[in-house]
Amino acid sequence: MTNMRNIAKEAGVGIATVSRYINNTGYVSEEVKSKIERVIEKSNYRPNELARAIFTRNSKIIGLLVPNISNPYFNEMALIIEEFVSNLGFSIFLCNTNDDPEKERHYIDVLQGHRVAGIITVRSQCKEEYTTHDIPVISFESNISEQIITVSTDNYLGGRLAFDHLYECGCRKMVHIAGPDFSNAINDRYMGFVDAAKEKNLEVDIIQFKTDFQRKMLEANIRTLEDIESYDGIFVFNDIAAATVIRYFKLKNVNIPQQVQVVGFDNSYIGEFLYPSLTTIEQSVQEVSKILAEVLVKLIKGEAVEQRKISIIPKLIQRETTKTFEKLNKIT
Amino acid sequence: MTNMRNIAKEAGVGIATVSRYINNTGYVSEEVKSKIERVIEKSNYRPNELARAIFTRNSKIIGLLVPNISNPYFNEMALIIEEFVSNLGFSIFLCNTNDDPEKERHYIDVLQGHRVAGIITVRSQCKEEYTTHDIPVISFESNISEQIITVSTDNYLGGRLAFDHLYECGCRKMVHIAGPDFSNAINDRYMGFVDAAKEKNLEVDIIQFKTDFQRKMLEANIRTLEDIESYDGIFVFNDIAAATVIRYFKLKNVNIPQQVQVVGFDNSYIGEFLYPSLTTIEQSVQEVSKILAEVLVKLIKGEAVEQRKISIIPKLIQRETTKTFEKLNKIT
Repeated sequence: MTNMRNIAKEAGVGIATVSRYINNTGYVSEEVKSKIERVIEKSNYRPNELARAIFTRNSKIIGLLVPNISNPYFNEMALIIEEFVSNLGFSIFLCNTNDDPEKERHYIDVLQGHRVAGIITVRSQCKEEYTTHDIPVISFESNISEQIITVSTDNYLGGRLAFDHLYECGCRKMVHIAGPDFSNAINDRYMGFVDAAKEKNLEVDIIQFKTDFQRKMLEANIRTLEDIESYDGIFVFNDIAAATVIRYFKLKNVNIPQQVQVVGFDNSYIGEFLYPSLTTIEQSVQEVSKILAEVLVKLIKGEAVEQRKISIIPKLIQRETTKTFEKLNKIT
Repeated sequence: MTNMRNIAKEAGVGIATVSRYINNTGYVSEEVKSKIERVIEKSNYRPNELARAIFTRNSKIIGLLVPNISNPYFNEMALIIEEFVSNLGFSIFLCNTNDDPEKERHYIDVLQGHRVAGIITVRSQCKEEYTTHDIPVISFESNISEQIITVSTDNYLGGRLAFDHLYECGCRKMVHIAGPDFSNAINDRYMGFVDAAKEKNLEVDIIQFKTDFQRKMLEANIRTLEDIESYDGIFVFNDIAAATVIRYFKLKNVNIPQQVQVVGFDNSYIGEFLYPSLTTIEQSVQEVSKILAEVLVKLIKGEAVEQRKISIIPKLIQRETTKTFEKLNKIT
């Protein structure tokens, strides 16, 4: 296999020059550049990324840890981040932790071992594992440490928006369906929902799904849903779980929004495909993804970032699972 | 930072022994093992994966290249493969090529540079890039070379199944909606559909989507769909595109399956969430993913695999977008 030495020889330049060219670590004249390029092209040489990463500590890989790549919100996030960073010459290694702290820990090790340039971690369940190395990290949703920048939606406000909307649509007996892991985000959504209810002198219930998204999600949670017809308004922790709730009501011949109204959370693409289409609280995946990528790239470049907490403002997206839809412009 | 030398010193053994232990390259007695493990635990030592990979040519990473991680079929595939290989000590680096051969080429380079143990490539558009290195590769759908094992569904049979089902359901004016890239798989589905039609003395049309799945898929393809109401049976190249077709008919107030019947392809999870739920041709994501992972791991271990082409038999899954549904057992 061709190596730097052979390239240098054939191009008639020094090894140090070839190294400067390949690793982009110093000046190489245009004339020498084109000589080297011709030789490389001819020889089909691929620089050893591993060796380069060891010596320069500068791989062009960003590790992206997501809890569940089947969740449409997270896979759209991966797409947007990938597109953004690839324009800056970075590639994404996407790691699915399956909401398992063991797996997350393992992937942090692997990414660290491969000397990635930076890590974006989503709904992390680990802490010190991110602080024992010097790789820049940015976190979505989880507060990892004082040092690590957290981006998160104002979930408390999101919960309030969900309550206020259901209340305006006439609901008086409401429940929140929470995810299996009672994270800060889930808790904040519930607290916002509860506090807004208190202001109207209402109490709201909470029930918890046994699983996050998976193929047989309805089957896995069908017992949890048994008494859900007694409520007139339901706020669900994410859109894909809300899709499952809608399937349940279809099986039971309960009409949405006539008998019960449903609000999801995320505004992932699945909401538009459902029937009725899903009213939801948007945490803009475009905005979140862009901030995560932009700030991480700044950290990788060694630029200062003052803000430690970056908050995303959620927004109500009205579709057909709540009653006011008729009064509003039809969403195509 | 702790290195092998310090570990050896503290454990009172030779560096070569520590290396054998860490890289699993030779015998280490149980007693010495536990000594080393205690020291490693205390010191929080992480072996340098990069250096290890260079010297042993044995990273425990499998690269998985998918064309579009937002397609529910591919993200479920990633989940299943990840689960399978992680039980064998491998991790997955998931790379989204966005159906862009340039991006695919780049990711092959990056994976090769990181000395991954093997590569699973889905709907590849590259060829020689996979043959210039000695990393084991397995391909889903695309025929890359004589040497590289291809797993693919019998798409021709899938097309025949779709036609036969629509015909049995009474359709006589049918169309196939193909994807933007006219791959072998898409072509085979269409040919099976056409040939089955010929046997019934029918002609079928074909129209082509301008984009594969993306958030505004309906908006991007709405002109392509303009005359689609003139057909009574539609066979769509994948489920997420079929979901888009169903949205279109809802906007146009066309009833499914009364006025037009729809069959998708894949049996990805989205089909169950749609209303009406989607009749589709299944290419079992469990079966496909398991074969891809199993065969690749065999190749990585240096085991012989005789078969160069592995075929998956597709199967009709009847739900509510075709008329015979009523007669059959209700699918929950």
